[in-house]
Amino acid sequence: MLAECLEKVRSQAPLVHNITNYVTVNDVANVILAIGASPIMSDEPEDVEDITSICAGLNINIGTLNQRSIQGMHRAAAKAQELHHVLLLDPVGAGASKLRTSTAAELIDNYRFTAIRGNVSELKALAMGSATTQGVDADAADAVTDQNLSEMIAFTKRYAEKTGAIVAITGAIDLVADAKACYVIRNGRPEMGRITGTGCQLSGLMTAFLAANPDQPLAAAAAAVVTMGVAGEIGWMNMNETDGNSTYRNRIIDAVYHMDGETLKKFAKCEKY
Amino acid sequence: MLAECLEKVRSQAPLVHNITNYVTVNDVANVILAIGASPIMSDEPEDVEDITSICAGLNINIGTLNQRSIQGMHRAAAKAQELHHVLLLDPVGAGASKLRTSTAAELIDNYRFTAIRGNVSELKALAMGSATTQGVDADAADAVTDQNLSEMIAFTKRYAEKTGAIVAITGAIDLVADAKACYVIRNGRPEMGRITGTGCQLSGLMTAFLAANPDQPLAAAAAAVVTMGVAGEIGWMNMNETDGNSTYRNRIIDAVYHMDGETLKKFAKCEKY
Amino acid sequence: MLAECLEKVRSQAPLVHNITNYVTVNDVANVILAIGASPIMSDEPEDVEDITSICAGLNINIGTLNQRSIQGMHRAAAKAQELHHVLLLDPVGAGASKLRTSTAAELIDNYRFTAIRGNVSELKALAMGSATTQGVDADAADAVTDQNLSEMIAFTKRYAEKTGAIVAITGAIDLVADAKACYVIRNGRPEMGRITGTGCQLSGLMTAFLAANPDQPLAAAAAAVVTMGVAGEIGWMNMNETDGNSTYRNRIIDAVYHMDGETLKKFAKCEKY
Repeated sequence: MLAECLEKVRSQAPLVHNITNYVTVNDVANVILAIGASPIMSDEPEDVEDITSICAGLNINIGTLNQRSIQGMHRAAAKAQELHHVLLLDPVGAGASKLRTSTAAELIDNYRFTAIRGNVSELKALAMGSATTQGVDADAADAVTDQNLSEMIAFTKRYAEKTGAIVAITGAIDLVADAKACYVIRNGRPEMGRITGTGCQLSGLMTAFLAANPDQPLAAAAAAVVTMGVAGEIGWMNMNETDGNSTYRNRIIDAVYHMDGETLKKFAKCEKY
Repeated sequence: MLAECLEKVRSQAPLVHNITNYVTVNDVANVILAIGASPIMSDEPEDVEDITSICAGLNINIGTLNQRSIQGMHRAAAKAQELHHVLLLDPVGAGASKLRTSTAAELIDNYRFTAIRGNVSELKALAMGSATTQGVDADAADAVTDQNLSEMIAFTKRYAEKTGAIVAITGAIDLVADAKACYVIRNGRPEMGRITGTGCQLSGLMTAFLAANPDQPLAAAAAAVVTMGVAGEIGWMNMNETDGNSTYRNRIIDAVYHMDGETLKKFAKCEKY
Repeated sequence: MLAECLEKVRSQAPLVHNITNYVTVNDVANVILAIGASPIMSDEPEDVEDITSICAGLNINIGTLNQRSIQGMHRAAAKAQELHHVLLLDPVGAGASKLRTSTAAELIDNYRFTAIRGNVSELKALAMGSATTQGVDADAADAVTDQNLSEMIAFTKRYAEKTGAIVAITGAIDLVADAKACYVIRNGRPEMGRITGTGCQLSGLMTAFLAANPDQPLAAAAAAVVTMGVAGEIGWMNMNETDGNSTYRNRIIDAVYHMDGETLKKFAKCEKY
């Protein structure tokens, strides 16, 4: 399943439209190229409908939203939905500001997302109206742990059922669920949190995986999460003593570039509940 | 000729004003610094006239255009033209959306560009009104090949004559032409297409080369293309087994940093027609 | 003092709000993570008050300012001041355009900055109304040298007294002063000027240092400057023969990631006047 999802991305090379923040946009473009897909960025309301029309998926990331780009998000999402494209939301900072929370909520209310991917604080803020998000990182008190795992799986499935989207909550333990099933993934390394944008990169990757695997979206979303986690592990193995987070960023994308199905299968720590 | 053009960039260190997309802007700045020139970025309409006035060249890249930055492009271009500065257009995604195509066409209609650099689909969209651009990458059916080479040389010269600009169509085979002559350049590597922004970087480099070599613009534009291609070849030689596209990006800019006239002459695959 | 300031950043992990340019924003985020703090970026006027409220410091960098982000700067600065947060200004390009000069001047007039950090041409433009800034780099004629050192120390102290801010003028010789004392720092390497954004990165770092050390702001600002300079020296030691400015960028951030108090003390070239 993992290998098959990856191979389809490489063979189909889907074009992914990204409305994403200017902090991590370059890494998002390079990781989409690394996996064998093709990125295009556009956030101007007058431009997004044409651009999304030639793509197979739309990745909306609200990380450095502004009034203009919010309009772009809505026009692009409406067009992508009309064309039955893959539609993914990364609600960066939901819970940390009213504008971010309300923008994410309005997008979810108005469009049927294929997937919503965020950290646990962002997803809790959207699902429960709580607002414990600390900046763009998850609050430690919210973390998915072995102790609260079954509760969090149930939460993730319920929110997936409510929104009709695949819900991916990523952190030390990743949960990827639809209404009926949930993958629990334990790949990755804690040092990935010392790099800006590994979550944004995963959202770009996931959009590519979903676009190339329309017949098995849950498996595709999980495969994207495993790919990013395994790349984090392989990238770390390739670190030298003086390397730090800036070089680690490069090595993770490099590992995505070289990823193949055999490697995914060998490293995957992925269970289905 | 190649060595001389490069040496003039290093000795004169021209200041290059860039109105460019937020995806690849950091790499554009670093490659301009690598070649020995100096970048400055500004797209706010109220800011661009002052900024471009202290520069020697203006690089306009429409990759993530918006209504505000389009105004900035016009005000900057008008001022740069008034001051007889080098003026370069990189029509990213022309043919892929109406806004991009019309923005590029209006800029070309209103200002006399020193050079226009893009991929073959973008240039065909502008020259012929065709619209086969696939996102920001060239359509394979449009590619310059040995089979259509003389036809494509003629096309490039004709569009150069029509616009009064040097026209650079870059891909596996690069064409750099004015109305009378065309350089055919076969440097570079296919893996450069797996990095975001090598085209944007080349546009920044080319603006610096043109600014430092006002007496031989065609040779300067060709020298920029050869420099980027040779850097791609040298960067590739410096890759280790686990390196991928993210590290390759760094190695190409590093190779520009170390480029000298001897190396350019040794590696250049450049013929004049 | 240096070691203590650094340890406090690592132990407190302050959240830093950045309104910064899109050229170097990714490196600013990664260097803030490297030092052990946490970055968040937001420039939309409707978003910045909420975001800055959950942070400990605000870093305002005017490098690619626009009319919208200028409004964001004012709303964020007002809120940060109301909450007694650390407030830092990086007046990129002040002196190079009327909009940049006036924006920086209005910010300084309206808010009490904890620190102002820029190159000597930017600071002279703001303090004296001169306008010799060449793009975003300092004019060579303005440089702080051993010959004009006592005069420049006096200038820096006077401007610190006038603004009530710590003033940091960085270049080959760095000056960090309040009204009464001035640190003279001689760390760093000239090759850092061949990378875009080392100044922007330092402003992000300095905001984190100031936020974590409210009881000794001058020492904290100086410690940030020493940290960046020493990272530049260590990063350079880790360069291979074919590495250039792109890899150097990574190695500097990597060196910040591994920085500890012992290393800072060993390498620091820092005197107090």
